[in-house]
Amino acid sequence: MIIINPDAGVMLFQFSPEIISSRIKETLASDNDEVNQIINYIVENSGKMIRPRLVMLSSAFYSSDSIIVRDVAVAIELIHMASLVHDDIIDRSLLRRGKQSVNGMWGNQVSVLTGDYLFAAAFQLINGYGLQDIMATVTETIRIMCTGEIKQMSMAHNLDITEEEYLDKTFGKTACLFAASCRAGALASSMPVQEVGHIEDFGLYLGYAYQIMDDVLDFVSDSLRLGKPVGNDLVQGNITLPVIYALRKPGVGPWLHKTIEKRSFDEANLQKINKILIDCGAIKYAVNRSHQFLLQGLDNLHILPPGSARNQLEELARFLMDDYFNKLKLGGEKGNQEAID
Amino acid sequence: MIIINPDAGVMLFQFSPEIISSRIKETLASDNDEVNQIINYIVENSGKMIRPRLVMLSSAFYSSDSIIVRDVAVAIELIHMASLVHDDIIDRSLLRRGKQSVNGMWGNQVSVLTGDYLFAAAFQLINGYGLQDIMATVTETIRIMCTGEIKQMSMAHNLDITEEEYLDKTFGKTACLFAASCRAGALASSMPVQEVGHIEDFGLYLGYAYQIMDDVLDFVSDSLRLGKPVGNDLVQGNITLPVIYALRKPGVGPWLHKTIEKRSFDEANLQKINKILIDCGAIKYAVNRSHQFLLQGLDNLHILPPGSARNQLEELARFLMDDYFNKLKLGGEKGNQEAID
Repeated sequence: MIIINPDAGVMLFQFSPEIISSRIKETLASDNDEVNQIINYIVENSGKMIRPRLVMLSSAFYSSDSIIVRDVAVAIELIHMASLVHDDIIDRSLLRRGKQSVNGMWGNQVSVLTGDYLFAAAFQLINGYGLQDIMATVTETIRIMCTGEIKQMSMAHNLDITEEEYLDKTFGKTACLFAASCRAGALASSMPVQEVGHIEDFGLYLGYAYQIMDDVLDFVSDSLRLGKPVGNDLVQGNITLPVIYALRKPGVGPWLHKTIEKRSFDEANLQKINKILIDCGAIKYAVNRSHQFLLQGLDNLHILPPGSARNQLEELARFLMDDYFNKLKLGGEKGNQEAID
Repeated sequence: MIIINPDAGVMLFQFSPEIISSRIKETLASDNDEVNQIINYIVENSGKMIRPRLVMLSSAFYSSDSIIVRDVAVAIELIHMASLVHDDIIDRSLLRRGKQSVNGMWGNQVSVLTGDYLFAAAFQLINGYGLQDIMATVTETIRIMCTGEIKQMSMAHNLDITEEEYLDKTFGKTACLFAASCRAGALASSMPVQEVGHIEDFGLYLGYAYQIMDDVLDFVSDSLRLGKPVGNDLVQGNITLPVIYALRKPGVGPWLHKTIEKRSFDEANLQKINKILIDCGAIKYAVNRSHQFLLQGLDNLHILPPGSARNQLEELARFLMDDYFNKLKLGGEKGNQEAID
């Protein structure tokens, strides 16, 4: 259902993660050696830089100042980094992308301060250019992310969570910053205001699609590829879409409900849960929902002027989803292929 | 040496903490009940609101928009609140001003997010008026506060700390935000640029004076007045000015060094340390240093145009120091009076 394009990724070579990384290091440089050491560690272990890519491509429909766009992209990545550093305290995660997290390496205290430092540096960068509308976008986004996460914490282990509440959670967790990245890029260019809403919605729906696949992968990938234990979300009390779907299935729902309620997450039960999610169609349902969001995002993108920026954003979206799709197919468990075909 | 003015405080009645508190609540209002509950708890347990007072009085030398000034004062208080909420995670403090801290009530996770939410709200407020120079001041201040605290953590329990390093630590901890408060107030008014540096320096030196007294009080007040255990700084590994002074005194230094190094902080030793700090002149020395900073602050203030704003800032400074001085005199230990006379 998601077609893997063998050329995906080719177009992305125009984006240089090194430019973002080196500017991040430059921006964060401090006269304190320990701070610099922490910063280097985070930058060297950074991810796919999806959000800076979204910023830069979203700015490319119309004219813009490339230095400003780069720095807005850097600021958005800093905000993402700050939220990850703080998330690892919240989730008590000692691993991030298969390596030790900042709190794994330096403890909670340093993590709190490092996150604050990254936030302040991001705002400082945006403020340097007097970009008031971009600042308004990112500050509001951070408020949404924080309140969303506080709400999520009060919903942890809650088996009555609806799909709507799950999507609300997904908005705060991922979709709102994807949307803000696209909006910030557009605002850094001369894009007409009526088009900004569409690029923002493209980011929003891509964010939903991306997070749903991330949640699916938590079950059906293997821990090596994932960089964290399989079923980790469930163990942490984070009830995601496949589980919400399966809990409402008559045949398997009651057992699943009881097992999660008792938090009986031994290896055998986690494997059984995995099998249930595949067999009852929960994985397929979630992958479908993700795909629907992707299409909704692309619909918004297609309203925007055709050309290189639009093509590359589409490539990026498909590349991200294909990357997840590949992980799903190659995941440790047999039957994944069957579940998603 | 610090004259207690019986009228101190009278002039301060023009400042209404309720205006700040209610605006804080308005600014932070969320559609999430739990967030609102946390916010109300923090606001109801807020302190003396020194920083918003500094903002408002610093703006009063020249013309300004009272709504903007109020909101800048609110933003500065939000930043202070955010840093306290995060500090309580860092210090693992379950108490704040004699009541449960946010992490005492809701845990580290909620505290991280609440602090981030407060920071974002502060930036949003300043950005709403497009106050680029004030934003630059506060973002830079937060960076200094964070790097200062990371540095402080690596210096914890370090008995070789010099007075200069202590003052450096004090700058990041308190003085830089006092300075930023005065600067922000001035920038929100039409104060000529050459005068802004003086009001900023007034805040800076007042901050040093204030923090030194706070550190002194940690030893010679009683825990009821302080709202935290006596000698708490020392137990946490925070080596402050009286201890730095006493460590270098031949008669008492070696015993103090050994005791702190072994972290033998039973009740008897804490009382003995208290007595040593009084007897060897360490408390007196620190109070004197604090007073010197206060005078240095006032020297800067006296360069500014005379009138109500200047008088009230002077009153505020003296009131704050007198308040500390009273606590010192009334503290649980006999001999405090003697130590500071």
